[in-house]
Amino acid sequence: MKNKIISILGSGRSAFTLIEYLSTRSKVTDTVVRVYDRNATESLGHLDAKDAEAIDADLTDRDLRRSIVKSSDLIISMLPVRFHCMVAEDCIEFGKHMVTASYVTKEMEALQKAALNSGVTLLNEMGLDPGIDHMSAMKIIHEIQERGGQVRAFESFTGGLLAPESEENNPWQYKFTWNPRNVITAGSGGAVKFLDHKNFKFIPYHRVFRRTEIINLKEFGKFEGYANRDSLKYQELYGLEHVETMFRGTLRRPGFCKAWDVFVQIGATDDSYNIRTEGKMTHRSFINSFLKFHPTDSVELKLMQYLKLDQDDVDVMEKLEWLGIFKEELIEMEEGSPADILQYIVEKKWTLESGERDMIVMWHKFLYTLDNEEREVHSYMAVKGDDLYHTAMSKSVGLPVALGAELILNGSINQAGVLRPLQKEIYLPILKSLKNMGIEFYERRIA
Amino acid sequence: MKNKIISILGSGRSAFTLIEYLSTRSKVTDTVVRVYDRNATESLGHLDAKDAEAIDADLTDRDLRRSIVKSSDLIISMLPVRFHCMVAEDCIEFGKHMVTASYVTKEMEALQKAALNSGVTLLNEMGLDPGIDHMSAMKIIHEIQERGGQVRAFESFTGGLLAPESEENNPWQYKFTWNPRNVITAGSGGAVKFLDHKNFKFIPYHRVFRRTEIINLKEFGKFEGYANRDSLKYQELYGLEHVETMFRGTLRRPGFCKAWDVFVQIGATDDSYNIRTEGKMTHRSFINSFLKFHPTDSVELKLMQYLKLDQDDVDVMEKLEWLGIFKEELIEMEEGSPADILQYIVEKKWTLESGERDMIVMWHKFLYTLDNEEREVHSYMAVKGDDLYHTAMSKSVGLPVALGAELILNGSINQAGVLRPLQKEIYLPILKSLKNMGIEFYERRIA
Repeated sequence: MKNKIISILGSGRSAFTLIEYLSTRSKVTDTVVRVYDRNATESLGHLDAKDAEAIDADLTDRDLRRSIVKSSDLIISMLPVRFHCMVAEDCIEFGKHMVTASYVTKEMEALQKAALNSGVTLLNEMGLDPGIDHMSAMKIIHEIQERGGQVRAFESFTGGLLAPESEENNPWQYKFTWNPRNVITAGSGGAVKFLDHKNFKFIPYHRVFRRTEIINLKEFGKFEGYANRDSLKYQELYGLEHVETMFRGTLRRPGFCKAWDVFVQIGATDDSYNIRTEGKMTHRSFINSFLKFHPTDSVELKLMQYLKLDQDDVDVMEKLEWLGIFKEELIEMEEGSPADILQYIVEKKWTLESGERDMIVMWHKFLYTLDNEEREVHSYMAVKGDDLYHTAMSKSVGLPVALGAELILNGSINQAGVLRPLQKEIYLPILKSLKNMGIEFYERRIA
Repeated sequence: MKNKIISILGSGRSAFTLIEYLSTRSKVTDTVVRVYDRNATESLGHLDAKDAEAIDADLTDRDLRRSIVKSSDLIISMLPVRFHCMVAEDCIEFGKHMVTASYVTKEMEALQKAALNSGVTLLNEMGLDPGIDHMSAMKIIHEIQERGGQVRAFESFTGGLLAPESEENNPWQYKFTWNPRNVITAGSGGAVKFLDHKNFKFIPYHRVFRRTEIINLKEFGKFEGYANRDSLKYQELYGLEHVETMFRGTLRRPGFCKAWDVFVQIGATDDSYNIRTEGKMTHRSFINSFLKFHPTDSVELKLMQYLKLDQDDVDVMEKLEWLGIFKEELIEMEEGSPADILQYIVEKKWTLESGERDMIVMWHKFLYTLDNEEREVHSYMAVKGDDLYHTAMSKSVGLPVALGAELILNGSINQAGVLRPLQKEIYLPILKSLKNMGIEFYERRIA
């Protein structure tokens, strides 16, 4: 008779490593691992997870979800974000713990009191970003503070990229390794906010991909970083209220942002209105709908003129041509927003193929004052995927989730309420285990 | 004993000419004119409207509004748009007619059946734009169609501008003559949509002020036009479903859009988030919050570099300097969106002063086929304001509203339901009366 039951809700790609890890560990940890999903059996067929049970189930069914929660000791929700709070409420009612890799929403925060009352742990933001970013940053911040130092500037960049050997023959050096929609609409939906030398700074969406920074990592090469939406909220989370610079961004290979900005500039990433394709829109006529009418000029020429690209700006045009956006290829959708249609076009080229591997890079930079001296330290990590199922993304999201679940079940995390991995008791053991599994942070003292 | 009672709700600037006109006509038309507003007495003090009654009243009070509607024969609502439907519902209940200068909203459209059932006329879009634009366009469209012609292209531009003699010493040749907020956020809130040579075309907000057209009117000089939000919905309204080009825009003097685009590009027109000024933000530091940090470069230099303005691009910089945006002048607000703060800064310079006069320009262009020949006709008008109270805007909004009210009361408009001035029975008598009052359209046959 096994001891504890872990139920994983959702068996999509992001859950693959999580499932394998918990399955492999189940004998040691004396746990039963159950995986619920519409396609649970199919998913587990791809995996080395013989000690996990696959249960094909429709998790939109509330009664079913409640019976799963009731019969488990801990729930891991890898469902779409909108389900997390419903599951959390059930967890509170039945006195079960829960782990997610998603941001704490306002609705989740509102469950704090109820979770405390019923002694339930709701551990969120346990993936990569949010997740490993918090843990690795807090480790350095706490170390500086404990030595009596004062953090003056914090910059942090994360990228879901391709392993260098898979970047060849791909001028973008990029493919989707995570939710494509988030990549298509990245930066939209509100102004970017950050703090720079004590000044609040704002960047509107249409400028985000033109205000990049170059980051050179000796081990991994050159990257560019564009700003994430709201860096300011991390001041309070990280206890950095008196910091002078606070900036979070996303990494791409150099040249990505300038070419992607073409789509932003013409309006092709807009998700706010629908276009009817009337069964006759092609890649090329989609792009043309954002360009001025001209009786004879080509779409390529009009695009270059609109964006003030020079004839010899071959770098940008090569990327666009490689994506096939100028082809007279039919768009097989009845209607969709520009973002829907752009995703449809781009997915034809930006989908990982067999033999290709992804790579995650995370890089933090801290400026701080200690003993009246200005100092600088960088902390960074990179992890590569093994194949299409064991991607770097799946490992770096799944492993901290799994480790968080183990820490709750073995009593190491015994605090109730809505949690993030900002405290030593959570991040220290997890960072240590991640290191043993190849997700290791290196530190470089600059000054 | 007077015959009919007209109640005007709201006595703001847009209602001044309306009130004067109806007051002056009250003896001839045998009507009582009542003006309700928090500041009705004060407003009427500025006007030559001795035959109108001023009643100071809080029109947010529902019971009061209902008693006004009940005791009137016709209501003219010059209140903020959100009140129109509440007033319209009362009008339906008590069997009274109503006129507004505002767009028919979905909520207003939903009252169609109830209005028909109670035989009530809800006549909307009776101002300048919407209003005179509909009437003058429909007149030409109907004429072409009656001669057996087919409209192939329709372009229409309207501008609330300054009279040429008031443009001096103002490099923008512009001041607010209408709701300043609408000018600050013009073009935002969704992509521009129009039809160009049978192609649907889309322009994102951040490109609207860079895709302008030059329009040269012999009598009034040169203008530039930027695209309005949704030109497509006018196809159905105007019966132009088979048109190949459909474009509506706003007129400014040449050079306005390039300089205004600076605010759009840096993000200073954003109305989606608030900035705390903390009592120390100045015009200059507001602009700086959208520019990169630099230890020594000036705000002016950083702005020019960001927008790729050349040192000798004096035209744009002169406009910006004239507005005072680089001044270390305190912003006396606790917090506000970028749009709020920009409006605060700009209103210091863009407010009409005594002696200055505004001017409305409207211009339509029609391409059509008649007897297998391609033809072109333009229709245009301009009207100047007399002073700060009798502005061109007040005349061109107020007079069609007033004329619409008279047509309902004298039985010329006897159709019930939610109406726009798209039918001959409405627009012909109104355009004729407007002409007699100096708002006259001229036609020019090009081919």
